Amino acid sequence: MRFPKVAVVGVGLIGGSFALALKSARACSHVVGIGRGAANLEWARELGIVDAIGTDAADAADADLILVATPVAQYARVLAEMAPRLKPTAIVTDAGSTKRDVVAAARAALGAKIAQFVPAHPIAGAEKSGAAAADAELFRGRRVVLTPLPENSAAVVRSAEDAWRACGARLGRMSPKEHDAVFAAVSHLPHLLAYALVHEVAARGNSAQLFGYAAGGFRDFTRIASSHPEMWRDICTANRDQLLGELDRYVAKLRALRPLVEAGDGAALEKIFAEARAARERWLSGDYE
Amino acid sequence: MRFPKVAVVGVGLIGGSFALALKSARACSHVVGIGRGAANLEWARELGIVDAIGTDAADAADADLILVATPVAQYARVLAEMAPRLKPTAIVTDAGSTKRDVVAAARAALGAKIAQFVPAHPIAGAEKSGAAAADAELFRGRRVVLTPLPENSAAVVRSAEDAWRACGARLGRMSPKEHDAVFAAVSHLPHLLAYALVHEVAARGNSAQLFGYAAGGFRDFTRIASSHPEMWRDICTANRDQLLGELDRYVAKLRALRPLVEAGDGAALEKIFAEARAARERWLSGDYE
Repeated sequence: MRFPKVAVVGVGLIGGSFALALKSARACSHVVGIGRGAANLEWARELGIVDAIGTDAADAADADLILVATPVAQYARVLAEMAPRLKPTAIVTDAGSTKRDVVAAARAALGAKIAQFVPAHPIAGAEKSGAAAADAELFRGRRVVLTPLPENSAAVVRSAEDAWRACGARLGRMSPKEHDAVFAAVSHLPHLLAYALVHEVAARGNSAQLFGYAAGGFRDFTRIASSHPEMWRDICTANRDQLLGELDRYVAKLRALRPLVEAGDGAALEKIFAEARAARERWLSGDYE
Repeated sequence: MRFPKVAVVGVGLIGGSFALALKSARACSHVVGIGRGAANLEWARELGIVDAIGTDAADAADADLILVATPVAQYARVLAEMAPRLKPTAIVTDAGSTKRDVVAAARAALGAKIAQFVPAHPIAGAEKSGAAAADAELFRGRRVVLTPLPENSAAVVRSAEDAWRACGARLGRMSPKEHDAVFAAVSHLPHLLAYALVHEVAARGNSAQLFGYAAGGFRDFTRIASSHPEMWRDICTANRDQLLGELDRYVAKLRALRPLVEAGDGAALEKIFAEARAARERWLSGDYE
C-alpha cells in the first residue's frame, strides 16, 4: 500500500475524487476527510468517499499523504493548523489553480517543513461541486501540473507524482511562475472575458431581448461565466500581475482588429479567422498533447 | 398542401433541413434543390432531401415558396437570376445571418418584386455543414427572426411565417436594423472575440505549451472560433458598423475591469462575477424565452 493513510482537506469535487481515485487504485486504505461543512462531510462518509471525518486540519497530521483542496484563501490557516503535528515522512500536495501565492502561503505556514509540500494543479473540474459530484475517474487522462520547490527532495517529488499518477493523471512540471503565466493565458483571461461579456449584456436596457436571441454560440462562449465567483475572485487577485499582462495583450489584439472591421477588410479578417480555426483544429486533433 | 412546390437555393445544413422539415410537416410535395456543388446536390437527391436539382436560380422561378440559403455574398446574383421569372404569388424568404445588407441586395435585384421577399434569420446551425448534415428537426423549438419590409403585405408575411412555423420554429419579428444590432451583441462580437483569443495564443512563441495546458473552459470559450471563416468574414463586413460599436463597448468594459484587477479589488471583482453568473443562470432557466 503506497499511502496507507490519506487525509483530504476540503472534500469537494476535487478532494472527493482524489480520495475515490486512490481507493480505486488500491493506493490507500484509509481516508480522513476534513472540512467545515458537516453535512457535506457526513454525506462523503455515507458515500464511502472518506472513512473518517474531522473539522480541524490538525486531524490530518498523522496521514502519509495529505491533499489540500480548499479554496486557496484558506491555505494559510489550514497549513498552519497541520504544521506542528505533520509526520516527517508525510507528503503534502494541493489542487490550487494558482501557484505562486500557494507557495508563499505554504512557506509562511510550514517553515522548514516546506520541503514536504509539492504544489500541484490538476487540470480537471466541472461546474459541479461538493462531495456528491466526486468521481474516481475525474483525473483519468487529465494533466496535473506539479511545480516542485527547491526544498523538495527528488524522493518527495516522486511520491507526490506517484499519488497523482495513481489517480490516472498525466504529469507535467513547471516552475510556479511559469504555471501562473500559462494559466493566465489559457484559463484566467478567458474566464474574465466571459464574465465581462455576460455582465455587459446584462447591463443593457434591452438585455431581455438580447438574452432572448442568444443561442448556442453565446452559451458555450459564456459557460465559464457560470463558474464560482469566490474562487475566480481569488484566482484573479492571486495572479493579478500575469492576468493584467494577458488582459493588456488581448485588448491590444482587439485594437489591432478594429481597423480591419472598420474598413470592411474582408481578406484580412478571413485570413485571421482561418488561421485561428486551423490552430484550434490542430489543438483539437491532439497535436499538443 | 400549403406550398406545393418549394425551391431551396443552397442545399446545405439550413437549406436541406428546411426542405426536410417542410416535407415532414406535409407542407410541400416537391422540392427543387439549386446549387453549384454537383456532388452535394446529387447526394441531397439520393437522401430524399430534394426531388429535383438545378444549377441556376432561375430554375426556382416557378416555385410557390423559395428559400435562399446560400452565403449572403451570393444573394445579389441568385436573386437577379430568379427575378425575371418569379411567379407573382411566390413567397421568397432567406436564412442569412445579417439583414440590412440582405435587404439592400434584394431591393436591387428584385425591384418591385421586393414585396414578395420576407427576410428571415433562423437561429439554428451547427459546425456541421452540407446536405448530409440536414435534419428535419433542426428548427424545432428554435427562434426564427423575420424582418418584414414595408412593401410586404400582411398576407405575404403570414405565408412566410407559415413556412417557418411548419418547420417547428418559434417566430419573432424585428426591423432589419434592430436585428443587426441584437446579433452584433450576442453572436457577431463573441465570434470575433473567440477568433481573436485563439489567434493571439497561436501567435505566441510558447503556443504549443499554452495549447498543451488549455482545457475544457478554453475549448468551450473558443468553440465558435472553429466556425467557417468565409461566412464570418461576410458577417463581420456586412454588419461592421454595429459590430464596431459592440467591440468598442466591450473594450471599454475590459478597460473598466483593468484597475480592479490591478488593485486586487476582490470585492468588486466578486460582485461582477456573481452578477454575471446570476444573469447567465436566469437566462439558462428560460426567463428570456
